[in-house]
Amino acid sequence: MKDKSGFIPGGGVTSPGGFLAGVTSAGINHHKEGSPDLGMLVSEVTGTAAAVFTGNLVKAAPVVVSQRRVQGGKAAAVVVNSGCANACTGERGLRDAGEMAELAARHAGVSPADVLVASTGIIGEWLPMERIRAAVPQIALSAEGGHELARAIMTTDTVPKEVAVRADEGNFVIGGTAKGSGMIHPDMATLLCFLTTDAVVDVEFLRSALREAVDTSFNMVTIDGDTSTNDMVLIIANGFSGGETIVSGSRQAEVFRQALNEVCIYLARVIARDGEGATKLIEVNVNGATSLTDARLVARTIANSPLFKAAVHGSDPNWGRVIAAAGRSGVELSPDRLDLYIGSICLVKKGLQASFNRQEVVGLLDGDEVSVSLNLNLGNASATAWGCDLSEEYVTINSEYTT
Amino acid sequence: MKDKSGFIPGGGVTSPGGFLAGVTSAGINHHKEGSPDLGMLVSEVTGTAAAVFTGNLVKAAPVVVSQRRVQGGKAAAVVVNSGCANACTGERGLRDAGEMAELAARHAGVSPADVLVASTGIIGEWLPMERIRAAVPQIALSAEGGHELARAIMTTDTVPKEVAVRADEGNFVIGGTAKGSGMIHPDMATLLCFLTTDAVVDVEFLRSALREAVDTSFNMVTIDGDTSTNDMVLIIANGFSGGETIVSGSRQAEVFRQALNEVCIYLARVIARDGEGATKLIEVNVNGATSLTDARLVARTIANSPLFKAAVHGSDPNWGRVIAAAGRSGVELSPDRLDLYIGSICLVKKGLQASFNRQEVVGLLDGDEVSVSLNLNLGNASATAWGCDLSEEYVTINSEYTT
Repeated sequence: MKDKSGFIPGGGVTSPGGFLAGVTSAGINHHKEGSPDLGMLVSEVTGTAAAVFTGNLVKAAPVVVSQRRVQGGKAAAVVVNSGCANACTGERGLRDAGEMAELAARHAGVSPADVLVASTGIIGEWLPMERIRAAVPQIALSAEGGHELARAIMTTDTVPKEVAVRADEGNFVIGGTAKGSGMIHPDMATLLCFLTTDAVVDVEFLRSALREAVDTSFNMVTIDGDTSTNDMVLIIANGFSGGETIVSGSRQAEVFRQALNEVCIYLARVIARDGEGATKLIEVNVNGATSLTDARLVARTIANSPLFKAAVHGSDPNWGRVIAAAGRSGVELSPDRLDLYIGSICLVKKGLQASFNRQEVVGLLDGDEVSVSLNLNLGNASATAWGCDLSEEYVTINSEYTT
Repeated sequence: MKDKSGFIPGGGVTSPGGFLAGVTSAGINHHKEGSPDLGMLVSEVTGTAAAVFTGNLVKAAPVVVSQRRVQGGKAAAVVVNSGCANACTGERGLRDAGEMAELAARHAGVSPADVLVASTGIIGEWLPMERIRAAVPQIALSAEGGHELARAIMTTDTVPKEVAVRADEGNFVIGGTAKGSGMIHPDMATLLCFLTTDAVVDVEFLRSALREAVDTSFNMVTIDGDTSTNDMVLIIANGFSGGETIVSGSRQAEVFRQALNEVCIYLARVIARDGEGATKLIEVNVNGATSLTDARLVARTIANSPLFKAAVHGSDPNWGRVIAAAGRSGVELSPDRLDLYIGSICLVKKGLQASFNRQEVVGLLDGDEVSVSLNLNLGNASATAWGCDLSEEYVTINSEYTT
């Protein structure tokens, strides 16, 4: 008898049945000398696959290659490196990404057409292909390899990011791992995220479920407003759990959708909390908007305001910065209808300062998770965005990255 | 015989004929105890006037009041305070702004309808009207008062910002003063800026000239992407120099337009250089764009990228961040056509890294003025944006503002 639904303790990308992962140190990432910087995720059988990629017009070579390959709706593996983005590298970069996929295909014993490729790191440098040629065959794949993979894809991340959820009374599992930290902003796929499931999923439904999950999770995370050239969210469904194919409109489709959202929102929150230099997770809830689009735009604009983020860093109840960010979001709103809360304390009622205990608010802002709620009082749509505080450390990290 | 055209050494907002200014300390700004925080600028005669205000939907009371009054196309004075924004203050805020203008009108002996009002500082607090009632009559107006006014409007600014230019063979003068520092971003009027001229200017032409000058100067400055509730750029033309009225299409119109642009670009650059925590001025030139709109958007997106700003702070030649910012700007571009320069050194040619001396580039980035040029190689339009580096100090300043 299978376990009940819920988060799997210590779960990750190899928790669903039939997935293997492994890593090696190829000397690509000079920031983590000797640590693994090259990894693979492999499904024992080719599965259905869907992906969302960066909205940046400058797309890294691995994005171009993977985008083309995933169009067929199937994949068996992904090979990924940290340390070099293989972006702005022209024809040679495309050839290198293709060869990297081929090396991985040979090592995993699958068709090169079913292997996707991902990279993260410095823009403008070529992949050290000789090292990669020597390193790929060293990757030892195992069903416990997900945790190593979560570490191998880290750049300025301080913690590995992974999760797995058992759903539908235990009938299937969805796992995932992601890297985040800097250059993270809506309107892109987001960072790197690899999702796996042993459910049997129709590819059309998989695509729409992934798009929806990305829109409510990763696209609602903002670290600094910069969108990377390399962002990619990938899901492979290998059908190992057996059972009926999940198609749009079925009862299981709703269960799958919810579980996928849960996995993605979990990873999105971990990414926000681990933003470069972050000391606090900020959750921005916007209610009472006229449309979902409006709610999302206001929430993201607030979560991305450097002045607000710096105020949270200093536990400064400077609520005017939240109102000012909402006002410049481009969304039509009525200043005299705005209600603003930090946690459950009302700071602004109908656009005017409410009477509140300043020290209590400072106490809430001192926590490692700060929740802000803004009610526009115009309609019924709501959305949540996640971000982090802006610290001196963010600047230090980013003024020393390539050097 | 009048002096030749050009910058007036030590010039400011009272350099044009017929303008007086003065300040006093009203105890409004707790960050500059005892220093002047209330000032007035007065023309000896009512002049034609034009203004541009914040695009933020949450508009401070003084913005609402001034916007209404300047519609008539004339003004004789402006009263301004730092320390309290009088924003999100409802009906009472509007009454206070109105009374502040009335106090100033009485003191200057002009009609209240001809007095505009401006504020900058903390959002959500009411103006200390008793102090302001006592303080306004203390303001001593003089033709040398411009320098004091430039200081009185400062908040986190570290230097006063003022300039004056003599134009048209000395026939008229344009002066200006501004405050900037934080919450500065395109799509708003910008910060506070008061411009004066003794030229005789038709109000329709004055409005279009001001709009154009703001678009090429203040709207191309970005400090942190936040747009204030209080931004205002005001010009008063009092006609003291005599001569013909400058109307659209005349030879003098072109001369006036150029001089006004020169004044505004000067102030915009000083504002960028004095951004909160800034140690360097960044100038971003975008060439070869299909339209002016595109060129401006790309230039501003680059100038506002936190990752790029942090890289400049650390003198890190991480050019991929410039390309990535251009790619996410929303402008259609061809990555394989991009040429990128720091100073006169080419870092990227047709989208690929050029061969350059890294130490030479670091040397340029170490300077206190960094110039970046990106050629899209698509058309003939170009634009320039200004910004500053992102330093640890920005965060420190903004995490401690209200406290």
